[in-house]
Amino acid sequence: MKKHYDVIIVGGGVIGSSIAFYLSKRNYHVLVVEKEALAQKASRAAAGMLGAQNEIGENSPLLPFALKSRAMFPALAEELQFLSNINIELIQSGIIKVAQSEEEAAHLRAIASFQERLGEKAEWLTTMQVKEREPELSEVVQGGLYLPNDGQVSAPLLSKALAQSAAALGADFLEYTEVQELIQENNRISGVRTGTDIHLADHVVIAGGAWSKQILERTGISLETYPVKGECFSVNTHKRIITSSIFSSGGYIVPKSGGRLIIGATEKPDTFDESVQLDGLYSLMTQAVNIIPALKNAKWEKAWAGIRPQTGDGLPYLGEHPHVAGLFVATGHYRNGILLAPVTGLLMADMIDGKAGDHPFSINRIPYMKEANI
Amino acid sequence: MKKHYDVIIVGGGVIGSSIAFYLSKRNYHVLVVEKEALAQKASRAAAGMLGAQNEIGENSPLLPFALKSRAMFPALAEELQFLSNINIELIQSGIIKVAQSEEEAAHLRAIASFQERLGEKAEWLTTMQVKEREPELSEVVQGGLYLPNDGQVSAPLLSKALAQSAAALGADFLEYTEVQELIQENNRISGVRTGTDIHLADHVVIAGGAWSKQILERTGISLETYPVKGECFSVNTHKRIITSSIFSSGGYIVPKSGGRLIIGATEKPDTFDESVQLDGLYSLMTQAVNIIPALKNAKWEKAWAGIRPQTGDGLPYLGEHPHVAGLFVATGHYRNGILLAPVTGLLMADMIDGKAGDHPFSINRIPYMKEANI
Amino acid sequence: MKKHYDVIIVGGGVIGSSIAFYLSKRNYHVLVVEKEALAQKASRAAAGMLGAQNEIGENSPLLPFALKSRAMFPALAEELQFLSNINIELIQSGIIKVAQSEEEAAHLRAIASFQERLGEKAEWLTTMQVKEREPELSEVVQGGLYLPNDGQVSAPLLSKALAQSAAALGADFLEYTEVQELIQENNRISGVRTGTDIHLADHVVIAGGAWSKQILERTGISLETYPVKGECFSVNTHKRIITSSIFSSGGYIVPKSGGRLIIGATEKPDTFDESVQLDGLYSLMTQAVNIIPALKNAKWEKAWAGIRPQTGDGLPYLGEHPHVAGLFVATGHYRNGILLAPVTGLLMADMIDGKAGDHPFSINRIPYMKEANI
Amino acid sequence: MKKHYDVIIVGGGVIGSSIAFYLSKRNYHVLVVEKEALAQKASRAAAGMLGAQNEIGENSPLLPFALKSRAMFPALAEELQFLSNINIELIQSGIIKVAQSEEEAAHLRAIASFQERLGEKAEWLTTMQVKEREPELSEVVQGGLYLPNDGQVSAPLLSKALAQSAAALGADFLEYTEVQELIQENNRISGVRTGTDIHLADHVVIAGGAWSKQILERTGISLETYPVKGECFSVNTHKRIITSSIFSSGGYIVPKSGGRLIIGATEKPDTFDESVQLDGLYSLMTQAVNIIPALKNAKWEKAWAGIRPQTGDGLPYLGEHPHVAGLFVATGHYRNGILLAPVTGLLMADMIDGKAGDHPFSINRIPYMKEANI
Repeated sequence: MKKHYDVIIVGGGVIGSSIAFYLSKRNYHVLVVEKEALAQKASRAAAGMLGAQNEIGENSPLLPFALKSRAMFPALAEELQFLSNINIELIQSGIIKVAQSEEEAAHLRAIASFQERLGEKAEWLTTMQVKEREPELSEVVQGGLYLPNDGQVSAPLLSKALAQSAAALGADFLEYTEVQELIQENNRISGVRTGTDIHLADHVVIAGGAWSKQILERTGISLETYPVKGECFSVNTHKRIITSSIFSSGGYIVPKSGGRLIIGATEKPDTFDESVQLDGLYSLMTQAVNIIPALKNAKWEKAWAGIRPQTGDGLPYLGEHPHVAGLFVATGHYRNGILLAPVTGLLMADMIDGKAGDHPFSINRIPYMKEANI
Repeated sequence: MKKHYDVIIVGGGVIGSSIAFYLSKRNYHVLVVEKEALAQKASRAAAGMLGAQNEIGENSPLLPFALKSRAMFPALAEELQFLSNINIELIQSGIIKVAQSEEEAAHLRAIASFQERLGEKAEWLTTMQVKEREPELSEVVQGGLYLPNDGQVSAPLLSKALAQSAAALGADFLEYTEVQELIQENNRISGVRTGTDIHLADHVVIAGGAWSKQILERTGISLETYPVKGECFSVNTHKRIITSSIFSSGGYIVPKSGGRLIIGATEKPDTFDESVQLDGLYSLMTQAVNIIPALKNAKWEKAWAGIRPQTGDGLPYLGEHPHVAGLFVATGHYRNGILLAPVTGLLMADMIDGKAGDHPFSINRIPYMKEANI
Repeated sequence: MKKHYDVIIVGGGVIGSSIAFYLSKRNYHVLVVEKEALAQKASRAAAGMLGAQNEIGENSPLLPFALKSRAMFPALAEELQFLSNINIELIQSGIIKVAQSEEEAAHLRAIASFQERLGEKAEWLTTMQVKEREPELSEVVQGGLYLPNDGQVSAPLLSKALAQSAAALGADFLEYTEVQELIQENNRISGVRTGTDIHLADHVVIAGGAWSKQILERTGISLETYPVKGECFSVNTHKRIITSSIFSSGGYIVPKSGGRLIIGATEKPDTFDESVQLDGLYSLMTQAVNIIPALKNAKWEKAWAGIRPQTGDGLPYLGEHPHVAGLFVATGHYRNGILLAPVTGLLMADMIDGKAGDHPFSINRIPYMKEANI
Repeated sequence: MKKHYDVIIVGGGVIGSSIAFYLSKRNYHVLVVEKEALAQKASRAAAGMLGAQNEIGENSPLLPFALKSRAMFPALAEELQFLSNINIELIQSGIIKVAQSEEEAAHLRAIASFQERLGEKAEWLTTMQVKEREPELSEVVQGGLYLPNDGQVSAPLLSKALAQSAAALGADFLEYTEVQELIQENNRISGVRTGTDIHLADHVVIAGGAWSKQILERTGISLETYPVKGECFSVNTHKRIITSSIFSSGGYIVPKSGGRLIIGATEKPDTFDESVQLDGLYSLMTQAVNIIPALKNAKWEKAWAGIRPQTGDGLPYLGEHPHVAGLFVATGHYRNGILLAPVTGLLMADMIDGKAGDHPFSINRIPYMKEANI
């Protein structure tokens, strides 16, 4: 006789594992079904920036959501360390968004003003002040916006720590298991079929990243999401050459533990191809070396790519299916899956608990909800 | 306006690529759609033995099919070298199936007699003769069946060479593209949908290995196939320690190019999990060291696993769908996908050409054809 | 004009880097010369156990030295995190030395008594108590000695953190640079030659692990040290299966961050060959699966080997050269290089400071000092 | 009692292994001593071009030597296949040396004339002819010198095949064994010391690549050689985009088996550092994409570096030591070690046989021979 779960989560990346973690903390009995191995794909490929202020525009409804998520990291890091024995390498040494033209500088100064009015720390640094803080930046940098509270974690370690902590709290995980069918009865979800096995549950959450869309098509909805490949590479330097993450219009340079730096990321839409192409590497290198010439002597480590789920309006889809009770969706985090993982896990747990208030990420928002073409 | 293909092949492993190759030789315009990268999974994991006589029982309808395929390799190797610049490392130095008990010896002697009657070379070697031929075999070996015409190739190179040769002849390939839907009109296949793209074709061949079953379920048939994990490892020795591949009841030891040896393979049914487990390695090592003690000093290289498609009656499914005209299936090759790739490619091309005669691998054979449970 | 260093350290492993770190803290100007890359070889291969009580016999002069080193880790971990941004993954969850026979049990109970008299925590656990603490241990375990204060770190991260922290404090590092000659004037060291470059210094420390002996031979002494290969492998489990490190007469099983376990290590003397051989893996697996049967299902990760410097009497050589003033040696740590790195760094800094008291690791102890055969 | 060898070869790269192979064919009893693993370093890093006409200037005494070596490859490939079961992937599809300016074009046309006078095939291709032959070359290419008889092999496979073939013929190999001392008696070599072991031989050949110089310094000679790092990377394309190797003033692009391309190589003198730096990759990419724009879409594979031995006058050192009878040297092949391996092996075997005639590579040529500084 099969176990009956409270919640089945389809997808074992950082979003699925975070949902599993927050549900497990509330004693929900959870099963995570992952078609390959846990904590792979975009969850492992990410540079791990927590750019709540850096990434998200001032008018976006995502901003308060992202700020809340960023604030959750310090306590979460300790909790995950305790439960999973994994240090997620939370570093809170800020992001500097550099300007390379007077236009960019003006734009960033405006953001600084706005964010200060909002009560968030944001400081405009003159060219000289930038150089004092980060002496290795080149003369192409014409000032920068310093966001001291934006930080970073190790994306692969966060993903793994969430999964292992959920497991420590009782969640079950099935790897290398593909969901073939979402089982419904009278417009209510009742479980999933994986090959010849049926797994029953009161709720099912689709947290399959860029692969969520195809899982949902069979249920009569076609979310407006599409995959965007991001290519990255990493190098090592013997001495640390930057302290904060450096963000420019052409990409970012993130200093990781022990002299390692991640340089990313390209944005190539509409492909699931995880290979790294030469043009992507070349454009990343051009920009990185332009901003930090000392990178020329850095030692090559490796290159990789991840496929991130973008949406039509740039907001994630977080909510219950309009036609199938008990079926939830959590995808569309694009470049902010690591940053938003904690608050997404919490919100989805609240939804399943029936405690979630209004929010702007509902999946039946107009016009991004439409009938699937099948 | 989308191209209209003659044939779309779903799956870019050794079987799909071989079908693409033989169709391209006949000027069919072919598209291969592969959900990840080409030439991976079981096609890459295989040890590459061409065990037509070794693997296949005397009463099996697979035996003449396998013998025919084995005979195709020498000419195919030259053709692939020419087209793709890849040497598939065809080695025709035989397989010795060793006995470890009097019962096994009696059984193998009977096979030798049968195969000789059949006109195939097969020689019973006494313990002393075995030792003369392969001095490193230990005293647990009590004679063996020598099959001089069974050989081996590099499985990853064969898979890659078939794909690249098909490409050189004009076949198109889409990697990292998953088929979401088989499109039918009036019980006739008309193409496939991959995400938001539609690809049209007169014929579609499902050659997805162990993943074929789930692609087909939507068409109303449920093939009786199941995945079987096989774990392997490889070592290196400075000097060659065996000349022929050694096959025992507990696994095989295959001497590859340049002192490398592949030891395989376990058989773990009903899982798509591609990780290697300690119990699998341990049992392979126990058997290998028992038969060739000198392996103790061999240098560890790496371990891996592949997921092979087994069927209810042990025969592959090769044929047209009973309800959907133009839709073909080629799967279920289990441990013999490398050996059978050439003849399978040829047979499928013949079927699409309308030239194939009767054969025992039709997919509507009783009782392995049943209605899908959806 | 070349810089004149206070100290040149030959060898950039965990010992050389620790010495560089402690000297840099005292404002010595240090150059580390490493013939390959930093933090490799035995320093990277180690499982990272801090087995002060576990590894070292009761009568050994090494015991108080090791206890002191173990006690340095908590403060050191914080200091390295601050300077290098590297978390060395210090875990203080104890070692259990399991008995597999009544003889072993009696022996371990005697050690428990001795260590308690010494004031060190050491607790004899009955079979039932062992199983309560570590339920996955099998019935071959007949009680065990629990050493709650023995812990572990990540060996590669400790090695890297020491090097990077020394660099942050001003130490220079030359990688891929082999010392060809130790330069002396009037029986006093004055520097080293590396290819065509001369580097001058008041003191030189040979911290080349198993390779120290050959560097020293040209100076007229032949230390009685020899290389001992240790082979290891690692696996992953989804849930943690043990909490403490498990030590048996046949090897150890160390639970690392996030469900990873390191199983080690063989002892193969008199070889610098860093390859892993099948017999080594096989014996490690046999023992590990015997003690923790659940390891059978663990996922294979990888195998590796390190070459450790053992000495004639099992004690390290730490001290000044008998004939060449200013030339120091720090090698011979065998299986305890990670544990002893902090105290070794401190002692060598004290020696160079002229503050070190008497200790039993002098390199001119009888009879292990002899004339080199050149 | 130790074996007494005819010849000990110090270095197990492509040169050392070739010498071992040619000596073993003449029934010399040979021992190869390699300080790490066989067939590594520059021998594995090379792109494998056989650029006898491409690399070597018209007045160089190296030219006839290189032409002779190139001519040895077809028969050698078959011999190595037979002895070692390794296909060295000899491809004889020519090199095109492209011009990017009128000056370069004029220079290359002059070379074409010279080589034709010499009797070697060399054809000047106009811009249009180049594009016909290699349609993917960009408009920066202004004609090119086509050398149809220059080819390529797999450098790692050639190195391995030579070693394994020598082993098959009876040569012994010691890996991970460093020669500490060259043993002489009365100005005649008698063997080598490796740690505590003595290996005796009538002849010793130093074939240690860029590391040869330091081995020889103890014998009173200081060869004028220095290490030059070369960085490379490789990519994959699904279809073959070039047929010949493309050589430009900024590097080369070599099409290997199965759609793989190697792009190389930088030239960074005076370092043994085998890491790849960002500036090296960046300059290689710039040049490669400039010449073949389609490379932008190629898939990244990996990057690596090798340390090659260059000499003061650009000629290798091949000959007997001026002061120590029986001690030979074979190094300084710089970028042509793969090409020159066969003829070097043959010449060194002839020298040891006492059959070698005059040649311009003697190690006591003026002024590159000087007294060692020790």
